[in-house]
Amino acid sequence: MTKFSYSLNATDGKARTGVISTPRGDIRTPAFMPVGTAATVKAMMPESVAATGADILLGNTYHLMLRPTAERIDRLGGLHKFMNWDKPILTDSGGFQVMSLAGLRKLTEKGVTFKSHIDGSSHELTPERSMEIQQLLGSDIVMCFDECPALPADKDRIAESMRLSMRWAQRSRDAFGDRPGHALFGIMQGGLEADLREESAQALREIGFDGYAVGGLAVGEGQEKMFDCLDYAPGFLPEDKPRYLMGVGKPDDIVGAVARGIDMMDCVLPSRSGRTGQVFTRNGVVNIKNARHADDPRPLDEACTCPACSNYSRAYLHHVFRSQEMISGMLLTWHNLHYFQELMQGMRDAISEGRFAEFEKTFHETRAQGDIEPL
Amino acid sequence: MTKFSYSLNATDGKARTGVISTPRGDIRTPAFMPVGTAATVKAMMPESVAATGADILLGNTYHLMLRPTAERIDRLGGLHKFMNWDKPILTDSGGFQVMSLAGLRKLTEKGVTFKSHIDGSSHELTPERSMEIQQLLGSDIVMCFDECPALPADKDRIAESMRLSMRWAQRSRDAFGDRPGHALFGIMQGGLEADLREESAQALREIGFDGYAVGGLAVGEGQEKMFDCLDYAPGFLPEDKPRYLMGVGKPDDIVGAVARGIDMMDCVLPSRSGRTGQVFTRNGVVNIKNARHADDPRPLDEACTCPACSNYSRAYLHHVFRSQEMISGMLLTWHNLHYFQELMQGMRDAISEGRFAEFEKTFHETRAQGDIEPL
Repeated sequence: MTKFSYSLNATDGKARTGVISTPRGDIRTPAFMPVGTAATVKAMMPESVAATGADILLGNTYHLMLRPTAERIDRLGGLHKFMNWDKPILTDSGGFQVMSLAGLRKLTEKGVTFKSHIDGSSHELTPERSMEIQQLLGSDIVMCFDECPALPADKDRIAESMRLSMRWAQRSRDAFGDRPGHALFGIMQGGLEADLREESAQALREIGFDGYAVGGLAVGEGQEKMFDCLDYAPGFLPEDKPRYLMGVGKPDDIVGAVARGIDMMDCVLPSRSGRTGQVFTRNGVVNIKNARHADDPRPLDEACTCPACSNYSRAYLHHVFRSQEMISGMLLTWHNLHYFQELMQGMRDAISEGRFAEFEKTFHETRAQGDIEPL
Repeated sequence: MTKFSYSLNATDGKARTGVISTPRGDIRTPAFMPVGTAATVKAMMPESVAATGADILLGNTYHLMLRPTAERIDRLGGLHKFMNWDKPILTDSGGFQVMSLAGLRKLTEKGVTFKSHIDGSSHELTPERSMEIQQLLGSDIVMCFDECPALPADKDRIAESMRLSMRWAQRSRDAFGDRPGHALFGIMQGGLEADLREESAQALREIGFDGYAVGGLAVGEGQEKMFDCLDYAPGFLPEDKPRYLMGVGKPDDIVGAVARGIDMMDCVLPSRSGRTGQVFTRNGVVNIKNARHADDPRPLDEACTCPACSNYSRAYLHHVFRSQEMISGMLLTWHNLHYFQELMQGMRDAISEGRFAEFEKTFHETRAQGDIEPL
């Protein structure tokens, strides 16, 4: 059986490209993970998600533990079989969504109790329970249970929270045990404070993980502060393990993160935007609901090979969006995920060929051109 | 260029099987036409609709004339190109939806004026305008503009309405002109009155059409009265032209209609039901929202080869329905359309092989068994 391993194949500046090998297949890095919150990437068939080039999905522990429950998914053969996705799945720990979605939270050293946002029922998440749930789901990459304070927060609060997360990281490691072919990732915290980030990274390295996430960013601090932190934070982590930036992001966030040494990212943006008519293209964002598209026979992006661009006019996409037809979300989500994966492939190629700086320059110049002129 | 033609290949009792040839491809009859109201079969990619076995779609003139408008679709190259469907399309005349959806209707000898249900704007439909719109859409099978009275209605009202529709049928024929490769179908009216049905059929035959619809049924009269009418009405129509029963129906309606000599049908039922969790199977209707499915690892129908049945458990389909995920409507619509098309193929084969009575018997017996027992 293939073990979980990471091979760093090339670097270009701080940018890295490599391959994470798992028993369920390889993950080419830098990798973008579409989000399949409730055992589905919204508006997509799983075979269509694979067709966009995704090697791995993210599933949300918080949502799945509440509905249909981890025990039920386990009885049904695990999350891969349940949702008809046989490639790798990374699950988050549930901690972040408890903080952002659940009601009546109570945080203690042991863990967190909360009420479900679906039916108000009471639940508890601890490092041990999070590990158990992620194992029941059959996750290939399991995330440590952590706490993520909202920013801005004062340094004492951030330090206290980070140290709690490091104690929980040790408990997660202990509870995870030895599961060949499955990986456990630690999560660095510490807000925007370099010394706390370094302290957190050191604590995680001492415990030892199969990969390391940069947590606590993309929570409202803005791109400039996020990039400031990414200028140093990845450097505190081991070079020979994958680095995952959680919850990022817009295309320019992604390119900037890869430039700073990040290997993996996830975000709901391409799928959520697909359902609200916001389209990502090489030339920036297109809002398909805009009346300028009503009579436009051209594709969203003539260079794109996704089904939305290959088979439909902007006029059609505008019509079905305005008519609130499901095919609107289906086609635009497909396009957005295709665009994000194409962006990742472009970066992987550029890093391999030592021309990442040129790639970045072209990326920003092409975006700055903006959408094609109306007819 | 292929002309529009109909070949009756076999009969078994009153049931018929044949092929309608058009420049855009053959339509195997008896045929079920999925409904693509607003230039999309809701929740389906057009290539998926084709994969279910559909040879032809129905488009709604009323919806398309209001949004995005027939003139816009014409400028964009016609409905086939607009919606990425290159097989035949039949369009209705708009008359039925004006009566069921539009506001402030005013009916005269000339036609009908009404207000859009979308934005309240004023519009007029006449036989001539309906022919023009259907030509702008690029419809392969055009329906005469007719009036369909709600049932029950007294016989004088039904007779008066039918005779108006026959005058409109002549005007439709005159306005349609000579369009090789495109067909115009007349619509028989006359409610549940045999003498009026015969009078209507005679009027249509004198005008001469490429096919004939039985209109004014499936409007609330119930299956028994509909079948009573279908026991005689198709016999008033020419044998050498296709016969289309509009707006039908449930699987047992369809089988009963084919048994009575109908060649074509359309209905929103499989797609609409797919979005509300109602599933059609050989064993009758399954309501996927029922809690009995929550832990059921079995497919909807183990004999079905559609993606929903091949790749997912009832438990998954229950979960995504309860979670209001789009994939629920996508998978269940696909299944329902697949089931309807498989039913049509089964009838075509049975008629060809002279065993339609046996097919009908097995169909009803299998349905009567009901769904598999809960685990």
